[in-house]
Amino acid sequence: MKIDHIAIAVNDVEQAAKQYQGALGVEKIVYETVEAEGVKLAIIKLENGRIELMQPTRDDSPIKKFLEKKGEGLHHMALATDDIESEYQRMEGCGIQFLGKIRPGSEGTKITFIHPKSLSGVLTEICSHPKHD
Amino acid sequence: MKIDHIAIAVNDVEQAAKQYQGALGVEKIVYETVEAEGVKLAIIKLENGRIELMQPTRDDSPIKKFLEKKGEGLHHMALATDDIESEYQRMEGCGIQFLGKIRPGSEGTKITFIHPKSLSGVLTEICSHPKHD
Repeated sequence: MKIDHIAIAVNDVEQAAKQYQGALGVEKIVYETVEAEGVKLAIIKLENGRIELMQPTRDDSPIKKFLEKKGEGLHHMALATDDIESEYQRMEGCGIQFLGKIRPGSEGTKITFIHPKSLSGVLTEICSHPKHD
Repeated sequence: MKIDHIAIAVNDVEQAAKQYQGALGVEKIVYETVEAEGVKLAIIKLENGRIELMQPTRDDSPIKKFLEKKGEGLHHMALATDDIESEYQRMEGCGIQFLGKIRPGSEGTKITFIHPKSLSGVLTEICSHPKHD
């Protein structure tokens, strides 16, 4: 299990990306819109993981609700595993509660989320990346 | 620049550590108390970084105030650099605001914090680890 990314809710993803780009001295930002989740992402690649800035693309986006309630800031952490199916089963066996089943994420990943009440109030994404054999 | 750790505010660090240990299938948890910051830490080492659970050790701890205001959850992210002094200077030149100067952290690290208003509401620790020549 390793840290995959840290996800941050922002009002304006391009403005926030410029702020991060300047602060962290990063050259390249990749933008991606995930319609199923109602978010536009700015992806900042660091040496060992990513920071993802997320702006809602519609009013029923969970990120929109988060911003209205809490304002901009840390939204969730994402941990990567090689085998999400067996991790899901193992965790379920430990009494961990999930928000939805394993489903497709961006860039060919498979994802699910651990309910915050199972991890001290922290929304935690579990993901696995496609294998490149 | 890389992700060093993700820091989470909790009410009871030993109870939370057990929850994380079960969920993530981690064997070893290291506990450390940092008196200067008023926190007891449970450090969970992952492949490429750490999760740090933080419980306040006294009433004037910033973590105590955070828990009262927001409850348990994500508190800050920490990014590591090889040369914190030059990064600090470079960032200051970009108009980034800091919370305090560079100072000693745990385990021989040097640390400072970027003010949340300089990074979309995210409290960000910048740290550098001691070199082992």
